[in-house]
Amino acid sequence: MSLRPVGTVALIGLGLIASSIAWSAKRAGQTRITGYDISPEVRETARRIGLCDQVCDTPADAVAEADLVILCVPVGAMGRVAEAVCPYLKPGAILSDVGSVKGSVIEAVTPFVPAGVDFIPAHPLAGTEHSGPEAGFAGLFDNRWCLIVPTQGTRPESTAALRAFWESLGANVDEMDAQHHDLVLAVTSHTPHLIAYTMVGVADDLRRVTDSEVIKYSAAGFRDFTRIAASDPTMWRDVFLSNKEATLEILGRFTEELFALQRAIRQGDGEHLHAYFTRTRAIRRGIIEAGQDTDAPDFGRGGAARK
Amino acid sequence: MSLRPVGTVALIGLGLIASSIAWSAKRAGQTRITGYDISPEVRETARRIGLCDQVCDTPADAVAEADLVILCVPVGAMGRVAEAVCPYLKPGAILSDVGSVKGSVIEAVTPFVPAGVDFIPAHPLAGTEHSGPEAGFAGLFDNRWCLIVPTQGTRPESTAALRAFWESLGANVDEMDAQHHDLVLAVTSHTPHLIAYTMVGVADDLRRVTDSEVIKYSAAGFRDFTRIAASDPTMWRDVFLSNKEATLEILGRFTEELFALQRAIRQGDGEHLHAYFTRTRAIRRGIIEAGQDTDAPDFGRGGAARK
Repeated sequence: MSLRPVGTVALIGLGLIASSIAWSAKRAGQTRITGYDISPEVRETARRIGLCDQVCDTPADAVAEADLVILCVPVGAMGRVAEAVCPYLKPGAILSDVGSVKGSVIEAVTPFVPAGVDFIPAHPLAGTEHSGPEAGFAGLFDNRWCLIVPTQGTRPESTAALRAFWESLGANVDEMDAQHHDLVLAVTSHTPHLIAYTMVGVADDLRRVTDSEVIKYSAAGFRDFTRIAASDPTMWRDVFLSNKEATLEILGRFTEELFALQRAIRQGDGEHLHAYFTRTRAIRRGIIEAGQDTDAPDFGRGGAARK
Repeated sequence: MSLRPVGTVALIGLGLIASSIAWSAKRAGQTRITGYDISPEVRETARRIGLCDQVCDTPADAVAEADLVILCVPVGAMGRVAEAVCPYLKPGAILSDVGSVKGSVIEAVTPFVPAGVDFIPAHPLAGTEHSGPEAGFAGLFDNRWCLIVPTQGTRPESTAALRAFWESLGANVDEMDAQHHDLVLAVTSHTPHLIAYTMVGVADDLRRVTDSEVIKYSAAGFRDFTRIAASDPTMWRDVFLSNKEATLEILGRFTEELFALQRAIRQGDGEHLHAYFTRTRAIRRGIIEAGQDTDAPDFGRGGAARK
């Protein structure tokens, strides 16, 4: 292979995803990791837990030697961070990111990318509801997808090197264009998150009426929603503002369908409901067959073995 | 204690909940379990896996000796099943159920309850997305709530006996009235389920456009939804038709809140979004503190240990 070796990786922003990249790369064994975070406290924590080979106090130091620089900050901060980092990139380096939205990140970052540097946006489809430098772990990307969105003029060998890096972290890699990525994510991730946030907010209103009953009796469905709705507020604010069009489109479809089901309930149309629920059950089977989840009964119980 | 001992329990309908009651009672050790299901195949399966001490071919045989009879059928079938079972109840027996809606079940069952029998509706807040006699397991009710809804004229000692039975299965027990139960469940369970069904249906429409990408790249949020939306279609159809008023009320609040968030996205109101998401994150902490879930990162990954 004529891959440029990814000898040193710089992680800019040391939250859940960056710390999981660091531990996963350490597990894979070949890569030197440098890191930077704008927060002195986060840098201190990262040093304390031994997160990177070197935690630097400036972005310039962190990226100076790096073959691959990954921006691991909220989508809304990508432009600012790219501006701070780009002047110090090594010629021939690859610049990438892990943002949940790709169109707006490309728009924000591209103006700062120097000649001789390939900017290849990426998005690992993995996460937990926790955040911060201590939330990461080596297995986060195992058998998860990482979507790579090569921009115009990217050298194929750079894309291949980034792909190899993500595969070394345990991920499966696919490529797609930014617009398509943002639509797919709007339906599989962004809109479901917004809905979960909304439902948890509604329950909170009711909780004020009925004391803590809603929390006390939160059944499986609602517990799953609260888990989703516990994700990082800044990250998700930026996602919705950055993927506005696709999210609003999917939300429009969602409310349309919801109103149809609501009408079926009001009219007592059991056939419509049963047919709809039977169809969604089949979709679940498709997901299990695609290997994206297991068939073990879980339903908000944390997956503990229970037989 | 002056509790009437619950020596024999009859389970009518042998699905996920009944089979979990049977295994949990066997684990507790004191109770004899008889069972009946309208489906000969289900009875055959129940016999094959040794689910009850005796699987009977008629409801009359199943309930003849029973101190406690639990109707474990979809909410919409409770009336029919009560009609079939009630003539054979032992004097002094307790009749109960496990339906997710209480108002409509009380309305449907009460006309058939003979004098000398206490009808005490109940609802264990536990389940998985699987169904059928082979889906049950002994730990399903451990540390989960079972809500008991005593009807007018119920003897206190009968309520105490039913409470003791559920506690012997591992559950915590609370009492409330039917109307309040149906409202609390509308917000914690019924509406979240409807929303999950809807979102999965929307994704399915999009899947037809983009092949299997939606399934392939289903991120954590969406996987949780599909798990919820895989639940038994008949059970859920009946829930929505039987808890119509409360579900429609909560759905109304939900769409109101969703439209407010949608408007914030359209207008780029990041402050509104961030404040909302911060609030829902705090609710999640309340649930963890109430002991209804763990803090382990899960997010649709089945809770496998990953550090």
